[in-house]
Amino acid sequence: MERHFEAELQTLRERLLAMGSVAETMIHRSIKALVDRQESLVQDVLAHEEEMDLLCIEIDDRCFTLLALQQPMASDLRFLVAAIKINSELERIGDQTVSIALRAQSLITQPELKPLIDIPRMAQLSQDMVRQSLDAFVRRDPELARSVIDADDAVDSLRDQVLRELLTYMMADTATIPRALALILVSRNLERIADHATNIAEDVIYIVRGEDVRERGDKELRKGLRISR
Amino acid sequence: MERHFEAELQTLRERLLAMGSVAETMIHRSIKALVDRQESLVQDVLAHEEEMDLLCIEIDDRCFTLLALQQPMASDLRFLVAAIKINSELERIGDQTVSIALRAQSLITQPELKPLIDIPRMAQLSQDMVRQSLDAFVRRDPELARSVIDADDAVDSLRDQVLRELLTYMMADTATIPRALALILVSRNLERIADHATNIAEDVIYIVRGEDVRERGDKELRKGLRISR
Repeated sequence: MERHFEAELQTLRERLLAMGSVAETMIHRSIKALVDRQESLVQDVLAHEEEMDLLCIEIDDRCFTLLALQQPMASDLRFLVAAIKINSELERIGDQTVSIALRAQSLITQPELKPLIDIPRMAQLSQDMVRQSLDAFVRRDPELARSVIDADDAVDSLRDQVLRELLTYMMADTATIPRALALILVSRNLERIADHATNIAEDVIYIVRGEDVRERGDKELRKGLRISR
Repeated sequence: MERHFEAELQTLRERLLAMGSVAETMIHRSIKALVDRQESLVQDVLAHEEEMDLLCIEIDDRCFTLLALQQPMASDLRFLVAAIKINSELERIGDQTVSIALRAQSLITQPELKPLIDIPRMAQLSQDMVRQSLDAFVRRDPELARSVIDADDAVDSLRDQVLRELLTYMMADTATIPRALALILVSRNLERIADHATNIAEDVIYIVRGEDVRERGDKELRKGLRISR
């Protein structure tokens, strides 16, 4: 049973990585749809949404089954609780890329406002954060998780830069306002993707911290139900 | 032990309701800060953020302890998994209200752009959705949960209305652009609050559906680990 459980945990880890890889693809293609003005890439992102939803349900079921059947100990329990949360974060990242793809779909029917520089940079940073947060999860690496959390500042500062630049376009020519606003909202979608990666990194630290203080943790767990509200 | 477990579940339910009530207060006051142009209400929202964070950690710990010590059966397990997710949603709602409060703080130092009608309406709807989603959770009421999910359309259509109206201000007078944009972003914060309430409602349906099909569910659970990837 123990060995079977380990194998199931390994499968769960792999499925989360697979989902992370779909999320990365969706980020990349939604922004490429916008930058290269390609409707086919919009459709490609929308087609991935269903795959994402199915993976999310499958992973939720796996976590639930492992919790129900295995009565896992503190460390594995912490891992499973984190897996449930990370699964939600990845699904939300997929939702954001769909929102970007739909904005791209509308923008590419209109004249190009400006060559996009900072938005693809934000996208690359966010995508790196997603990959690194999952690497940190699989390797249980709190240093890598912490570097993801630090990288969020760079995304926020690009978001501010995008806002400042697009505001000047809007002020100079009111005809640009709808397009500039759509690009500002794309930058907010990317900001949220980076926030989700940050949340994953925080979950990783939660798992690892739990392991570091495991002995103390177990003692507290035993006392747990005596702690009153 | 069984009775103790029931009492602990009841406490958990009450703590989630308490957190929901803090979230509602934060939504109400962040929008009131904006509408009534009151800096003291901005500070009030910021002061609630810490309370929210502490509640979130406490609830996470309670869920974890109950999972670890009680080896709960399918129905209680489903409840605890939902509680972990709902806890995250409520924390994120708090984050959105902080973002609204900070935008309000900047806007109230500038001349008023227009009397706000649709934004307070969006706020009221979102606040109702949060309360009803938690009521649905406590009463395990899938009908109420479904009505929360339906209400999300009304919020989305107000969001579109806010956008259309503010675009006309921006086009008519470029001096209004920064303020109009800030209000558009407030409407997006409210949209996200409504989305979080919708997620809670979906978690409620997940718990109740699990109970409806419990027998079948248990059978599937037993087979669970045989389902290969």
